Amino acid sequence: MDCIFCKIGEGSIPSKKVFENERILAFHDINPAAPVHVLIIPKKHIASLNDAEDGDWGTFGEIAGVAQKLARELGVADSGYRLVNNCGKDGGQEVFHIHFHLLGGAKLGPLFSRGS
Amino acid sequence: MDCIFCKIGEGSIPSKKVFENERILAFHDINPAAPVHVLIIPKKHIASLNDAEDGDWGTFGEIAGVAQKLARELGVADSGYRLVNNCGKDGGQEVFHIHFHLLGGAKLGPLFSRGS
Repeated sequence: MDCIFCKIGEGSIPSKKVFENERILAFHDINPAAPVHVLIIPKKHIASLNDAEDGDWGTFGEIAGVAQKLARELGVADSGYRLVNNCGKDGGQEVFHIHFHLLGGAKLGPLFSRGS
Repeated sequence: MDCIFCKIGEGSIPSKKVFENERILAFHDINPAAPVHVLIIPKKHIASLNDAEDGDWGTFGEIAGVAQKLARELGVADSGYRLVNNCGKDGGQEVFHIHFHLLGGAKLGPLFSRGS
């Protein structure tokens, strides 16, 4: 597998980890789009939300719980935050290992802005 | 409870439903921000992601599965889409019954745009 997020998940590429268990890893985005910008990924390689299978939904629920916990720990629970999964071209997905963006620390603007 | 999404969930306020089971309802946003804009909610009143409890994570995982299914049914699975939860003020949350936005049908633009 030549997947950068698989390599981060297994530890062969370093990351600034903020959460890890057997199934999930969360780390600071190296090119943050907001003052707080963490990526939460399953360690299992799932290319996108389109590719998730029946046995995967429990992990996605757990990811929402990790987002709640990290928002508190990173100091944005009270000010607010956004949890985002981009899937495919129109979503703007850049790495094809599913990841959830946790964004906060500033007013995040409109839900939708038309791409250029 | 004077919660509009609880009322939509119980059926006392009508909505354009696209999915329903005992735990989850999905319906077209009445003020769509994209060509496809569906809201997916738990029927249980949970104000925001900050307020979710241990027993709720399974439902959130199921919501990801509903998003995958609806993206296919609404014709945006291949073109791409975005699944978003806004929490609190900086996230731009407007209704305090947790909801996930499924957006697609156009290139969705940058992940973050600074609020005005």
